[in-house]
Amino acid sequence: MRTTITLGLVGYGYWGPNLARIFSSLAGASLSAVCDHNAERLEHMRNLYPHADAYADFREMLDDAQIDAVVVATPLKSHHALAMASLQAGKHVLIEKPMAASSKECEELIALAKQQGLILMVDHTYLYSGAVATIMDIIQRGDLGEVRYINCQRLNLGIFQQDINVAWDLAPHDLSIILQMMGESPIMVNCQGNAHINPKIEDVTNLSLTFRDKRFATIQSSWLEPRKVRQMTFVGTRRMIVYDDLQPLEKIRVYDVRVDFPPHYDSLSEFYCSYHYGDCYIPRIEQCEPLLKMCGHFIDSIENHRRPISCGTKGLEVVRILEASDASLKALGGAVVCAEPKKPRMELVHAPFSKAC
Amino acid sequence: MRTTITLGLVGYGYWGPNLARIFSSLAGASLSAVCDHNAERLEHMRNLYPHADAYADFREMLDDAQIDAVVVATPLKSHHALAMASLQAGKHVLIEKPMAASSKECEELIALAKQQGLILMVDHTYLYSGAVATIMDIIQRGDLGEVRYINCQRLNLGIFQQDINVAWDLAPHDLSIILQMMGESPIMVNCQGNAHINPKIEDVTNLSLTFRDKRFATIQSSWLEPRKVRQMTFVGTRRMIVYDDLQPLEKIRVYDVRVDFPPHYDSLSEFYCSYHYGDCYIPRIEQCEPLLKMCGHFIDSIENHRRPISCGTKGLEVVRILEASDASLKALGGAVVCAEPKKPRMELVHAPFSKAC
Amino acid sequence: MRTTITLGLVGYGYWGPNLARIFSSLAGASLSAVCDHNAERLEHMRNLYPHADAYADFREMLDDAQIDAVVVATPLKSHHALAMASLQAGKHVLIEKPMAASSKECEELIALAKQQGLILMVDHTYLYSGAVATIMDIIQRGDLGEVRYINCQRLNLGIFQQDINVAWDLAPHDLSIILQMMGESPIMVNCQGNAHINPKIEDVTNLSLTFRDKRFATIQSSWLEPRKVRQMTFVGTRRMIVYDDLQPLEKIRVYDVRVDFPPHYDSLSEFYCSYHYGDCYIPRIEQCEPLLKMCGHFIDSIENHRRPISCGTKGLEVVRILEASDASLKALGGAVVCAEPKKPRMELVHAPFSKAC
Amino acid sequence: MRTTITLGLVGYGYWGPNLARIFSSLAGASLSAVCDHNAERLEHMRNLYPHADAYADFREMLDDAQIDAVVVATPLKSHHALAMASLQAGKHVLIEKPMAASSKECEELIALAKQQGLILMVDHTYLYSGAVATIMDIIQRGDLGEVRYINCQRLNLGIFQQDINVAWDLAPHDLSIILQMMGESPIMVNCQGNAHINPKIEDVTNLSLTFRDKRFATIQSSWLEPRKVRQMTFVGTRRMIVYDDLQPLEKIRVYDVRVDFPPHYDSLSEFYCSYHYGDCYIPRIEQCEPLLKMCGHFIDSIENHRRPISCGTKGLEVVRILEASDASLKALGGAVVCAEPKKPRMELVHAPFSKAC
Repeated sequence: MRTTITLGLVGYGYWGPNLARIFSSLAGASLSAVCDHNAERLEHMRNLYPHADAYADFREMLDDAQIDAVVVATPLKSHHALAMASLQAGKHVLIEKPMAASSKECEELIALAKQQGLILMVDHTYLYSGAVATIMDIIQRGDLGEVRYINCQRLNLGIFQQDINVAWDLAPHDLSIILQMMGESPIMVNCQGNAHINPKIEDVTNLSLTFRDKRFATIQSSWLEPRKVRQMTFVGTRRMIVYDDLQPLEKIRVYDVRVDFPPHYDSLSEFYCSYHYGDCYIPRIEQCEPLLKMCGHFIDSIENHRRPISCGTKGLEVVRILEASDASLKALGGAVVCAEPKKPRMELVHAPFSKAC
Repeated sequence: MRTTITLGLVGYGYWGPNLARIFSSLAGASLSAVCDHNAERLEHMRNLYPHADAYADFREMLDDAQIDAVVVATPLKSHHALAMASLQAGKHVLIEKPMAASSKECEELIALAKQQGLILMVDHTYLYSGAVATIMDIIQRGDLGEVRYINCQRLNLGIFQQDINVAWDLAPHDLSIILQMMGESPIMVNCQGNAHINPKIEDVTNLSLTFRDKRFATIQSSWLEPRKVRQMTFVGTRRMIVYDDLQPLEKIRVYDVRVDFPPHYDSLSEFYCSYHYGDCYIPRIEQCEPLLKMCGHFIDSIENHRRPISCGTKGLEVVRILEASDASLKALGGAVVCAEPKKPRMELVHAPFSKAC
Repeated sequence: MRTTITLGLVGYGYWGPNLARIFSSLAGASLSAVCDHNAERLEHMRNLYPHADAYADFREMLDDAQIDAVVVATPLKSHHALAMASLQAGKHVLIEKPMAASSKECEELIALAKQQGLILMVDHTYLYSGAVATIMDIIQRGDLGEVRYINCQRLNLGIFQQDINVAWDLAPHDLSIILQMMGESPIMVNCQGNAHINPKIEDVTNLSLTFRDKRFATIQSSWLEPRKVRQMTFVGTRRMIVYDDLQPLEKIRVYDVRVDFPPHYDSLSEFYCSYHYGDCYIPRIEQCEPLLKMCGHFIDSIENHRRPISCGTKGLEVVRILEASDASLKALGGAVVCAEPKKPRMELVHAPFSKAC
Repeated sequence: MRTTITLGLVGYGYWGPNLARIFSSLAGASLSAVCDHNAERLEHMRNLYPHADAYADFREMLDDAQIDAVVVATPLKSHHALAMASLQAGKHVLIEKPMAASSKECEELIALAKQQGLILMVDHTYLYSGAVATIMDIIQRGDLGEVRYINCQRLNLGIFQQDINVAWDLAPHDLSIILQMMGESPIMVNCQGNAHINPKIEDVTNLSLTFRDKRFATIQSSWLEPRKVRQMTFVGTRRMIVYDDLQPLEKIRVYDVRVDFPPHYDSLSEFYCSYHYGDCYIPRIEQCEPLLKMCGHFIDSIENHRRPISCGTKGLEVVRILEASDASLKALGGAVVCAEPKKPRMELVHAPFSKAC
């Protein structure tokens, strides 16, 4: 017999309504309460979900013993306090990305969740998309070869955030995917950017990640682009992939092109690159709403007491890189070396991706 | 009565044949000699242009008193020596981009050309394209407002150069356009990059230029992309332009979208961006081969003894930024401040663009 | 004080659920009953709309005096019987396209609605889309000139209908738009097609409509295309429009190109076409779900007792052309002349399009 | 030792200059004479090809015993007379498409070429393109299954011809490909069209070809479209292909989608179509100018005395269908049954396609 996980949602602003919609229709889940300090938003929610309790005071919602898990969809600065309180009250927690405003905050959350034996998960939605699952399959089958370079562009006009810059707003999507594909943390971070609209908040950033063995990734984030762009290129030693998330069906193209990497050079004059050009193929991608899959994975993780794909440690990893990018921005783009070259921690996981839809 | 300018071309490798083709059919020009140390290339040329003299020795070609101007289309390292010798021999000079291997070399060329009273021009071809002329028109009419930010991507698979990195190879195109549109030199340069194939030569670079008053430009150059990408976005205070050079007809889109830039903020809570969304229009662009226009402008400049659009000083400006980018690469992406904040020198010129085709 | 129109929906299969979703959240409307003979579908509906009554027997639903209007979303063959019964019971009626299986059926419905003083409307959804409203604006302002030729393609893989061919399935969308833009009925219809899958039902058809004064329209409909295509070209005497409904934002392109139509020719040798090429612009289109606007227009029409845009007469016009296309198919593509060259009846209406969203 | 075929070209207007350019640089060929009645065109030619003789009088050029073959690139109405005279003079002949103004003219040319033992070839250029060769490979390998349906669109703004309608101008490209892929002639032809600009010459046509066993093809040709469109869809029993000739690299997409065709039906209620969706792949296509390959094939055919791919019989087949389309246009779109259901004559040939570039 299947149990039902009862959820309380805090934050019914920009992203919260999407989570409410999913959880209220998801098998195995029940949305029993929503909290927001804005009375108008709360009233709007009440009309759509008459069976859910509406709270203006988060502490009151936490007192509801029936609630198993709390979903935090508020502005970044309140993530830590709300999630800490939830864990202390014995609730599992799902937090919007980025996980918290600093790596210290993330570490406190991870420690408390571990101590309480509760699930702590971050909503890195793209890790649950069919496109990313397909790319991971291709990498794990060895068809791409070794991943040498990842290039990302995530551009659009606004939404200008008032408390975080464009890297904190948009790059978490790219970072969560890059960490999954690279399978380890970067050893060096550079970030260059500029604040055109609000003089204190960068609206354009170029982030570079250097990994061991000269593997490399770049992320361009912008709120100043008339077109919407969501593109990633994965360069492997055997093939290359272009992932365009705005294509309705043909999101992924696998190019059978490569440059043969010579093992060594005795002199520059001996150096010749060998190109291989071939076909391109467009794999069929499972059509399933990533947000639905992510929410289902949260419910599964609670039921089976299993560490989720996008666990707190992965949320922390993303925040660490964003902190390093802030430091590099302050140093006018200078390199920020990541403290301890860690052993790989971003294992490529696969099984949970193919079961939800 | 119109005179004919007689030309000698040195370098019949990758780009030289295109210049030979143009100059041999251009009114007012006559290709009378081609020099290359490769006998096979020279033989090939002889079949196509039986009336041109073929030289293996550059000094011999220079001795030909009939030659008015020399076109240098050799690898970068020889630009300076060949152009210096040509100027000393009293010939006008057109050099492939980038102009020379260092700003010192460029300065010597500029000084000698001035002293000899000869035309010195760099082949920044894109400055002569219909698309760039149209964008300059839009800017000069004031339709874009002030140019705040330019974002460029120039990506493809190879050609891997063996003596210069991808920034020196591809970024001169973007730099010549940016300098023209911004109308001045940057005050700070950052460059991050990586060498995946040949360990000494970066095949991926991200270049950032900071101008006075926080104006900004970024250039991504790559030899490691399965698709060919040639895109620039111009963000102005009134409109935005996306320029995609690979579109056969619709290269430029002018977006009537903007973010209204508030003049000042008393507090963050007062800060609201105002978006304006509107129509998009695609101006009709004059169809004319830019290389033909560039070559015609060289001939015109000689005939009228007028400083060309892409004069030596502009070639120098580009090389200065590339030198700064090398310094930044060595400093692991750290900022390189440009020596003397110069007064604007990249005036927006227009007249010569509309006459050639 | 605003009244609420109470609705009963019959048919909860392919399209019915969309109508249920819209009407259940539309201001001024209340979905109080749903009828379907499939118990499983009915059960599914009950979970989503617990306040709506579920009926397996349509006569029982009609007996509900509270119901003001019936929405018919069943297979084509039952449209006539269900709508006739509804009108006899004093209910307003909205029918899915095509209106009915023959023009005779349509005429009976129109006559009965008139006699009863009830609203009869056909769901020609596209007439309520922002893109079509924008094209009509452009035509009414005179920017297109006279509409001379309309070319439509509506192609995809399946869904193969089992009772109607691909023209009856897909062409009503194009026909409703063409009739609106041309402002009159065609005088001749040709249809060529073929049945590849089910030997009795054409899965590919090419339909041609000839209007007075040699104006012309063609409609290609196909269930045998691996891509989805939804394109229309409008050729006017002053400009041309391409409408691609699959573009998320840039659905309409207005091309400032035209051929100047000479008024007469004395001889072929005097004939020269004059081309004018110019800019292209992409007007910003109001983002509003057309189905929402259509449903709102039905409610408005009932409240204000006003003839709807897509009234029964327009539904009849579409069915007449489909009947003619069947006759032409049987005549192996031969021309079918429409009985009586009618005076224009498809007036270009505008006001109701800009108020709903 | 290789011989050189000496060529004379008649017609230096729209297409002739392209043929002159190719033949003047093709190994094994020598362009020795060009004929045009326009003195200005002839003067222009003389500057580009100083070694070729210029003729205003075609009879004089024919008297040149050195000329082995004549290339006819004049308006359609003169094809027959010029080609007949050439064959009578013992010259091989290459004619622009369409081959001649009537099937009777074509038959006379075929008969005379046979009697004289000379090569007669029609410039159906697309048969020599890498894209068409790739599609033929796919069909011959059986990957597409049986070809059931081909849908073509060839649309653009003008060039308005003054002597032939848009079907005679544009459809020969599609027809030559369709005949090759279907491997036989159609048994029925329908054509609907309209003349908007010049009242005697259709500028929009929809042509339908019915083959034995209900196989089907449609061709839409238009001079009234602001965009340029060059698309063909091939529907097979196993896969589908979309060929977009305007894509620079990715011209062909092979869709692994199909509808399973049930062998028979006892009743409509038993009828279910089964869809199969899968990946899509984009084969790499050999980059080679089709015109170069076509010209090379003409030279090869002369040298080896072998019947060319696009022989006179194939040119005749295309003209027969165009004649039938004229008859259908006059019959207001009615079906024109092709006289004698012929045995397959369009064998799928392959070998000569892979050798030229």
